[in-house]
Amino acid sequence: MKRVDPAVPAGNVAELLANMSNTGFQGRKLGESLDIWSRMIEDESCTILLGLSGAMIPAGMQEIIRELVKRRYIDVLVSTGANMFHDTCEHLDVHHYLGHHHVDDVDLFSKGIDRIYDVFAYEKEFRTIDSAISGFAGELSPYTGSSRDFTGRLGRWLSEKNPSGKSVLSECAKSGVPVFIPALCDSSIGIGLLMARRKGVSTFVDQIADVDEITKIVESSERTGVIYVGGGVPKNFIQQTQVIASIHNAGNDGHHYAIQYTTDSPHWGGLSGCTFEEAISWGKETPDCRNVQCFCDATIALPVVVSGLVSAGVQRKKVPDVMNMI
Amino acid sequence: MKRVDPAVPAGNVAELLANMSNTGFQGRKLGESLDIWSRMIEDESCTILLGLSGAMIPAGMQEIIRELVKRRYIDVLVSTGANMFHDTCEHLDVHHYLGHHHVDDVDLFSKGIDRIYDVFAYEKEFRTIDSAISGFAGELSPYTGSSRDFTGRLGRWLSEKNPSGKSVLSECAKSGVPVFIPALCDSSIGIGLLMARRKGVSTFVDQIADVDEITKIVESSERTGVIYVGGGVPKNFIQQTQVIASIHNAGNDGHHYAIQYTTDSPHWGGLSGCTFEEAISWGKETPDCRNVQCFCDATIALPVVVSGLVSAGVQRKKVPDVMNMI
Amino acid sequence: MKRVDPAVPAGNVAELLANMSNTGFQGRKLGESLDIWSRMIEDESCTILLGLSGAMIPAGMQEIIRELVKRRYIDVLVSTGANMFHDTCEHLDVHHYLGHHHVDDVDLFSKGIDRIYDVFAYEKEFRTIDSAISGFAGELSPYTGSSRDFTGRLGRWLSEKNPSGKSVLSECAKSGVPVFIPALCDSSIGIGLLMARRKGVSTFVDQIADVDEITKIVESSERTGVIYVGGGVPKNFIQQTQVIASIHNAGNDGHHYAIQYTTDSPHWGGLSGCTFEEAISWGKETPDCRNVQCFCDATIALPVVVSGLVSAGVQRKKVPDVMNMI
Amino acid sequence: MKRVDPAVPAGNVAELLANMSNTGFQGRKLGESLDIWSRMIEDESCTILLGLSGAMIPAGMQEIIRELVKRRYIDVLVSTGANMFHDTCEHLDVHHYLGHHHVDDVDLFSKGIDRIYDVFAYEKEFRTIDSAISGFAGELSPYTGSSRDFTGRLGRWLSEKNPSGKSVLSECAKSGVPVFIPALCDSSIGIGLLMARRKGVSTFVDQIADVDEITKIVESSERTGVIYVGGGVPKNFIQQTQVIASIHNAGNDGHHYAIQYTTDSPHWGGLSGCTFEEAISWGKETPDCRNVQCFCDATIALPVVVSGLVSAGVQRKKVPDVMNMI
Repeated sequence: MKRVDPAVPAGNVAELLANMSNTGFQGRKLGESLDIWSRMIEDESCTILLGLSGAMIPAGMQEIIRELVKRRYIDVLVSTGANMFHDTCEHLDVHHYLGHHHVDDVDLFSKGIDRIYDVFAYEKEFRTIDSAISGFAGELSPYTGSSRDFTGRLGRWLSEKNPSGKSVLSECAKSGVPVFIPALCDSSIGIGLLMARRKGVSTFVDQIADVDEITKIVESSERTGVIYVGGGVPKNFIQQTQVIASIHNAGNDGHHYAIQYTTDSPHWGGLSGCTFEEAISWGKETPDCRNVQCFCDATIALPVVVSGLVSAGVQRKKVPDVMNMI
Repeated sequence: MKRVDPAVPAGNVAELLANMSNTGFQGRKLGESLDIWSRMIEDESCTILLGLSGAMIPAGMQEIIRELVKRRYIDVLVSTGANMFHDTCEHLDVHHYLGHHHVDDVDLFSKGIDRIYDVFAYEKEFRTIDSAISGFAGELSPYTGSSRDFTGRLGRWLSEKNPSGKSVLSECAKSGVPVFIPALCDSSIGIGLLMARRKGVSTFVDQIADVDEITKIVESSERTGVIYVGGGVPKNFIQQTQVIASIHNAGNDGHHYAIQYTTDSPHWGGLSGCTFEEAISWGKETPDCRNVQCFCDATIALPVVVSGLVSAGVQRKKVPDVMNMI
Repeated sequence: MKRVDPAVPAGNVAELLANMSNTGFQGRKLGESLDIWSRMIEDESCTILLGLSGAMIPAGMQEIIRELVKRRYIDVLVSTGANMFHDTCEHLDVHHYLGHHHVDDVDLFSKGIDRIYDVFAYEKEFRTIDSAISGFAGELSPYTGSSRDFTGRLGRWLSEKNPSGKSVLSECAKSGVPVFIPALCDSSIGIGLLMARRKGVSTFVDQIADVDEITKIVESSERTGVIYVGGGVPKNFIQQTQVIASIHNAGNDGHHYAIQYTTDSPHWGGLSGCTFEEAISWGKETPDCRNVQCFCDATIALPVVVSGLVSAGVQRKKVPDVMNMI
Repeated sequence: MKRVDPAVPAGNVAELLANMSNTGFQGRKLGESLDIWSRMIEDESCTILLGLSGAMIPAGMQEIIRELVKRRYIDVLVSTGANMFHDTCEHLDVHHYLGHHHVDDVDLFSKGIDRIYDVFAYEKEFRTIDSAISGFAGELSPYTGSSRDFTGRLGRWLSEKNPSGKSVLSECAKSGVPVFIPALCDSSIGIGLLMARRKGVSTFVDQIADVDEITKIVESSERTGVIYVGGGVPKNFIQQTQVIASIHNAGNDGHHYAIQYTTDSPHWGGLSGCTFEEAISWGKETPDCRNVQCFCDATIALPVVVSGLVSAGVQRKKVPDVMNMI
């Protein structure tokens, strides 16, 4: 057996994570995840899908995600609607603020401040973005399309509307990274769309098309790697593509690489926290899949691991043209 | 101050929960939740919405949920797609089995057994239900409607297809309890719908209509009470109705009663685990909302609390006609 | 395979737990724990050890624990010092109060109120008990003995001091159930003992004697069953007895029954949350040990399961004379 | 309000943590903890106490802790017995190995391999260390002293026994950092001591002296800062010093700085997971204490934050002579 090699303090993040991968518990898992992600990036036949749950944009993860897109450390993004709503806010100069988690919320309500754990924001400002999205839907009308098509248009519209603004959506639109939001209407984007609908705007978001499109990407890929930030709909939506591909005899045999950063636990029985071992029983991951599940808040794991990837200088060798797989 | 009154063992569940409500920590919260749910049921002006996440049907919660519908302890159900898929399976005699959580999953895969923590099922049997749903979509075609409309039709179809079968869906259809599945295609129901789509069947599930319909129910209710089993899309989807109602000046001022049973934690910052205090800052709950968040696996909390409601003989005084609010 | 049998609401706790044992996830585990505990009680060759962590007495679990002792559902108690301090308080009419977990703690401090999550108490009153314990040590002086001997004397002293008072300690003293507190001085009992020491009182608590005595009980028992409420020192202290017995070739081969109610998780790597499978690798449990780890707050699990034992009328057949094993 | 400033990937750990302290959720807390720890180190009037729980040495944290001692980023160590036992093992060339958490433990048992989550070790080798400790006790005999005195002697003995070996204990002995183990006998050190006792060796570990000594250090310090790695006995043992100092009117008013890295949660009501706000109600921390509780596995938090301290070049200005305070 190989000895545990105690971690030594290191100034460089990549070096530190390499140290940690020879220790135990979740520190070891975090270190291993850097190695697995690096392998995905360096595998020329691999398409990389990222599932993004949790209030990551309010919590300051926007630049980290944008970096992943720019460096093409990911090829497909599946997100909650909320993350892309808050991303839209930031692009349009509606911001999030450093608050505190132990406060008087009735007082905040009276001041029009919304709280997301220790992050604050102004409800009034959010409503201007709800309206902006409603307005954008009006411009598109009549519209029917997948959420992936919708978010691509939204990303381009944001770049036009505020060329100096920054967002994951606009970066994805620019980089050819499709963004799926399977539960689009379960978010303030949905609120904006309902505002438009109630005004008579004709917009339909075709959720079956979403399943079709993402499955086509998986079916067209020789290998796939998945990274789950949290669980929820984004995780299941990516996981189920392998089951669908199998039903349609597409020649896939499960995701080949898999990473999850989560604060959920397997013993609650839900899909969000389940192990990749469990997923293997379903054929969602291959039996010999390189995988790691690291129990850690993503606001720690993401900055640390992405800094590790960047500082290690990991380079994508071949970028799959996912937009042409749809 | 009122003294902690040590819990005394009691044979009757309702009595035990009453005892527990005078203790501390999560036992106290569980006891308090019985009291708050009872108040919702006895409030003649209250519409009760249940959000259902987690693999509750595979875990044997079908009868508990059916009882809630039959006794009309709830008026609206918002669920993950998976729960209603597994509910459909049970109705059509495809069952779930007692397994174990610590097994060799590669071995299970080779035997065609899917694992959900300590519950097993046959993949082959699940695929017959995927096909049945695809077939049902074919019968409906051409179809455009909300998930609520779709699940109503599915519930009635199940009763016709297998009159001796039991399901939450068929019970809801019979009892006039609408079932919303905001992320319908993120589930095996979605898999069935895609199978149909790829065969050329014309089915569209209109997610914006879902937001519209559930918001109308909330807007038409004098007061609302919410119960969240887990978090995820069902929790947020119900929570956001109050924000939408506020934007449309519908006269609502937040949910009046709120219960959550969850294994998530507030400190991860996500919506699933956030406190009702946080929700008050957003106006989702009223500042004086009677609420309790109980940190407990729902497979414990639900059977215990629902047994408490039943054994206490809590009676609904007036059932709101929610189908007519849509 | 045996089918999952959906839980049906039941008024009787024992019946409900039996239902739950045929479901999934932690509800199933809770149900299984009733069965395993019942088997321990009915096994005539089994000595039952309970490890008690967490602020169980402040949280209103005193009567539940007393019932376990009175009915002799347990034979040995290993506790944190804090639990037995708060138990002493209750016996001497210093009580705990229903508070709230979301308050201004600086304000509480200024009012002399100590908070234990949602339980309040008066610091001033606690200090009278610190002094009482210091006084009791003075009466004993000069004293050297194990914590087990010390708590036995404390239990008897409490009965004399306040004959109408109730405590786990006095009940254990009366029932011949030894109480070990391996980290006695890490608690307000330790504070009282230090107060005495600083006044010149001669008191020594011999922690090596504790290890010796509890190991002798295990070595003298044909079989042992363990129940862990939480983890911490009480769990490890009981677990390690089997390793010690093995080193001394006492003929033991691990605990034969094992239950843990915990809110910790295996993936953090600590002893508190580790699985009984892990314990088997160490020889702490037998390879064929009947065991269950249930992830649930003990303020829920204990009242429910103990009510189940009581309402099922489980009877101890033969009570081991543990005091004579020391 | 100050805006959330999205974290940007950074190669240097200290820079990355500074970025993270302007984000949200636990990433922000981790960043803040670097700042608070730096302040403790730079405060010339501050004595720094570290509480160490969890299987940190098996998990490869030995070098990190040794670095803290060498650089005198801490002045007092309070540990579980297990950590110092495994530290002793490493010093005497008995090592820990990289294993896996999902294995057949009955098979491991048959091979004499002990598992600590994903770390393996040989039971036979551990028993040689149990015997070595028993032998060391024999050399000391007759002995009565605090665990602090005992660990000091053990540390020096290790250096003599294996001069090329490395351990936290020997480093602490060399650096004048006292090591308290309040529950010494709840560990394999206790097993070794019992082996000696049963052979007639006269050894007494005086736990009341431990409380006295650590309280004297706190009473002699102008200010104190605390860092808790996990909870358990080490946390409470350090926390209670302020209560004891208050009872003895020593002029203290609570710890002035406080950090906890934990995977426990406040809502379970135990001391391990309770907030520093709760502690303020008890007077354990000052009302204006600079504190942060970061929910993160210590095998992630410790390497990252200690690397941050080291790479930022934080320097202790004035080292308190804690050995002379006892």
